[in-house]
Amino acid sequence: MKKRLILLALALLAAVPVMAKSQIVRDSLQSVVLGRAVKYNVYLPDGFEAAGKTYPVVYLLHGLSGNNEDWEMRGQMRTVLDELIGTGEAAEMVVIMPCAGDNDVRNVQNGYFNMPDCPYEDFFFNELIPGAEKKYRCGGSKGRRAVMGLSMGGGGSTVYCQRHPFMFSSCYAMSAWLDQRELDPDAPMDKLRIVSESVRAHSALDFIDNAKPGTIDELKTVKWFFDCGDDDFLLALSTEIHLKMRARGIKSELRVRNGVHNWEYWHTALRTSFPFASRNFDR
Amino acid sequence: MKKRLILLALALLAAVPVMAKSQIVRDSLQSVVLGRAVKYNVYLPDGFEAAGKTYPVVYLLHGLSGNNEDWEMRGQMRTVLDELIGTGEAAEMVVIMPCAGDNDVRNVQNGYFNMPDCPYEDFFFNELIPGAEKKYRCGGSKGRRAVMGLSMGGGGSTVYCQRHPFMFSSCYAMSAWLDQRELDPDAPMDKLRIVSESVRAHSALDFIDNAKPGTIDELKTVKWFFDCGDDDFLLALSTEIHLKMRARGIKSELRVRNGVHNWEYWHTALRTSFPFASRNFDR
Amino acid sequence: MKKRLILLALALLAAVPVMAKSQIVRDSLQSVVLGRAVKYNVYLPDGFEAAGKTYPVVYLLHGLSGNNEDWEMRGQMRTVLDELIGTGEAAEMVVIMPCAGDNDVRNVQNGYFNMPDCPYEDFFFNELIPGAEKKYRCGGSKGRRAVMGLSMGGGGSTVYCQRHPFMFSSCYAMSAWLDQRELDPDAPMDKLRIVSESVRAHSALDFIDNAKPGTIDELKTVKWFFDCGDDDFLLALSTEIHLKMRARGIKSELRVRNGVHNWEYWHTALRTSFPFASRNFDR
Amino acid sequence: MKKRLILLALALLAAVPVMAKSQIVRDSLQSVVLGRAVKYNVYLPDGFEAAGKTYPVVYLLHGLSGNNEDWEMRGQMRTVLDELIGTGEAAEMVVIMPCAGDNDVRNVQNGYFNMPDCPYEDFFFNELIPGAEKKYRCGGSKGRRAVMGLSMGGGGSTVYCQRHPFMFSSCYAMSAWLDQRELDPDAPMDKLRIVSESVRAHSALDFIDNAKPGTIDELKTVKWFFDCGDDDFLLALSTEIHLKMRARGIKSELRVRNGVHNWEYWHTALRTSFPFASRNFDR
Repeated sequence: MKKRLILLALALLAAVPVMAKSQIVRDSLQSVVLGRAVKYNVYLPDGFEAAGKTYPVVYLLHGLSGNNEDWEMRGQMRTVLDELIGTGEAAEMVVIMPCAGDNDVRNVQNGYFNMPDCPYEDFFFNELIPGAEKKYRCGGSKGRRAVMGLSMGGGGSTVYCQRHPFMFSSCYAMSAWLDQRELDPDAPMDKLRIVSESVRAHSALDFIDNAKPGTIDELKTVKWFFDCGDDDFLLALSTEIHLKMRARGIKSELRVRNGVHNWEYWHTALRTSFPFASRNFDR
Repeated sequence: MKKRLILLALALLAAVPVMAKSQIVRDSLQSVVLGRAVKYNVYLPDGFEAAGKTYPVVYLLHGLSGNNEDWEMRGQMRTVLDELIGTGEAAEMVVIMPCAGDNDVRNVQNGYFNMPDCPYEDFFFNELIPGAEKKYRCGGSKGRRAVMGLSMGGGGSTVYCQRHPFMFSSCYAMSAWLDQRELDPDAPMDKLRIVSESVRAHSALDFIDNAKPGTIDELKTVKWFFDCGDDDFLLALSTEIHLKMRARGIKSELRVRNGVHNWEYWHTALRTSFPFASRNFDR
Repeated sequence: MKKRLILLALALLAAVPVMAKSQIVRDSLQSVVLGRAVKYNVYLPDGFEAAGKTYPVVYLLHGLSGNNEDWEMRGQMRTVLDELIGTGEAAEMVVIMPCAGDNDVRNVQNGYFNMPDCPYEDFFFNELIPGAEKKYRCGGSKGRRAVMGLSMGGGGSTVYCQRHPFMFSSCYAMSAWLDQRELDPDAPMDKLRIVSESVRAHSALDFIDNAKPGTIDELKTVKWFFDCGDDDFLLALSTEIHLKMRARGIKSELRVRNGVHNWEYWHTALRTSFPFASRNFDR
Repeated sequence: MKKRLILLALALLAAVPVMAKSQIVRDSLQSVVLGRAVKYNVYLPDGFEAAGKTYPVVYLLHGLSGNNEDWEMRGQMRTVLDELIGTGEAAEMVVIMPCAGDNDVRNVQNGYFNMPDCPYEDFFFNELIPGAEKKYRCGGSKGRRAVMGLSMGGGGSTVYCQRHPFMFSSCYAMSAWLDQRELDPDAPMDKLRIVSESVRAHSALDFIDNAKPGTIDELKTVKWFFDCGDDDFLLALSTEIHLKMRARGIKSELRVRNGVHNWEYWHTALRTSFPFASRNFDR
């Protein structure tokens, strides 16, 4: 009897989250090519421990000045994904959230591409993917792997899929930093300048312009989704790449919702991005 | 020139929120009837200082074991309301978020009704409303005042509008605790038992059952909205009150979306609740 | 050159639907048990002719006084499903829309159950399912078959899944007529009375109340979804069955959106129902 | 008693629309400048006859090869608007749907601008607006008047607001034909060519490019909304005008949803467009 009232109290305690048995693991990988350990967070779905099976995997990338904690702490990715898996809108999956930066953007290297003294792309494909997928029983092939991210991570997702089209089944780019057209030649050669130049050097727009028919065919094997707020200062990049890809016959989805370059937008985007990745996994 | 790169960096810094000129003020009111100071947070819209005008007001109520910080810290009410005011979906308004509880539910009195040694309802109507509305240039009449809240605060909102129908133009109750049918007679007479008994004594369902025609007419002057997750343990209360009110000819809105009793649900509910209150303000 | 302007004109012609290669086939089946031919419409997805493969199937049921044309002519099911298949939100599927009624509800038998002189349920399971699935290369097992419908068809869907849980992987009931509590003993014994009595005799609510543990276990093998407007006169039936099923441990989805008992509601429901059925098909 | 069963039957009859007391009036206006009668449909809200008051007005424009019946017959504007007014999301309003074309696009003049032998814009502003607003007690000023439309009508809405910014409080352009860049010099000088050339001559994009500061200030007095499907062949026009306007400091909303150039898209757009117009009416 007493139990009832106590249960009521517990249930009503907004402070007590619903008992989700999914978990966020904090891990790191000693990178040979970077010469340092790289942190990454891992979402493991409810039942992961008990199941012997292999899961599909999403790489979820943060933005400039962010880190591996962002998607959980600021984007509440766990709450959203638990709910989507609960209704079947998202597949049971593992999510890898690697660190590719820091708030101190002038002194710490941010970015997903190979940059002077920081071959991050090499680390990502040669060390992180094989290491994390083995350790956390996930991925293993294009059809079981997707990538998504916000801003710098949206650009990273897009360019990774352009340069490695057989590695990912789908790409979901939020508020994506797809190019950096204006660069100040007099800016100090600090870490911010390095990442900015690397974004220009890896322009996702130029990539489409310069793609040969064979490359276009490869890009068609990836499912593409661009999602950007109508008041986002990067909006033109998302609309432009969608139109360029359409002109070359590559199907992509574009959504422009109300919003700016903030976590409110990206938190909401997760409700679309996880189901999108899930639909495009091999079954 | 350098400026450009710096601006870019700032813009890309997900850590830097968009410069919203709205503000959250932390205040408190010395209550005579409660014999103590009661904290409350206030949302003031962009331009409040400069404008001499009076704003409409929403009272936004937290749940059991919550407090005046919840709606901002856990519900991100400021981000959502800034955005809705920006598109015109919500009116420029003041939002009052009073404290009516604490995480220590057994030793600190939670609740919105008059309870032994804690005449909170008297405080709310006789002290908080006149005090806060004068200090923050808002409200002043039914047509310029609305109430909404979650769980215990959803029940509080509903019962406040039932008992004071000429005080509020609209009521938006989320996952509302509208009644407490089961009570353990042997439970210790602690603060949790007191609030539970007060919810039963103020049953919003019984209120409808017992309402005389004149009361029904009064209830029709309020716009009602109930919003509860399909997996919420309190769901039956929301569906029941909607059907009871309909049977008595009182129009109300009901939404059942996917979800449980958590902040993900209430955060999303704000996108509907603020426009609803706004539409029902006098203009 | 001239072509361009002509193409423009054609493209702008709102009158010209986008060239969807899906098709609606009108067919009929000579029923032995009913002693007459029963019409049914079939949606075949783009590429059906060329593909040799077998598709999953949805049975999409109309309401009282409707017929096999309704879902296409009034619900625009083809436009919606083409679009959902295009984005991958729905699986490529066949949809069977059988006739179970007519506008003349007093003189023509409406209904999905076995009624005097009209063993429709027998027809459905013994003749329609095997006949249509063979002819249109679809279904074949529980995991490849779903049922959904509106009003009388929502009740039909629910009861079919209760009585034949191993025939359908999922059930999506819109504005469902799940019971008929009030019956006029003096009403003329016409076709309307027959269908009303058959709905009472097949009460989906009583079915849950009376279900033994073994039956409950069987019901858990079906994915359930109830979707009903907040101003629908049948709302209480949908909320009640959801709560009853929850109390017995059977997971179901409930959505209450704004709306009444009309095609605007059901047209919109298709955007949720086809993806729901698709997610629950075997892959 | 019998009544109950009959009422049930009527209620369940999907064929019987909910008794909305709004109405669609079919009217026409003898135009002096066009030298012929022009048909237009009028939506009058529930209670229009009895109320003596004046309503705000929306001009709702059809596309190329369409006519005054389209929005009701193909877009179900009445059902949607009845529902939105019912919840308070849209204001009680009058909607004028004038005829500006015909399916025979080569032989009948389509278009909203002044064209050879067809000064439609003159008709619209000098005859239709004053005539219809007087006859149907609506509009009367910028703050009580809005315009919206699809495709050719979306372009018409935009250009009308550019050229007459003090006539409309808001503009909602769906899948808008805002420019016609490619024209075939050898095309026959038929009605289709005339409208195409008139769209080029009234390019909404060029208008922004060429606007002087004073004009920009005028444009800021209108609320702008562009809504276009991601697979619409006209998408680039909507994204471009939004970006151009933003660059000039004119706030506008942009939404890109999934979809093509079809009625499914426009029907859905009405759920956003009527509330948008309503929020921007003077109160």
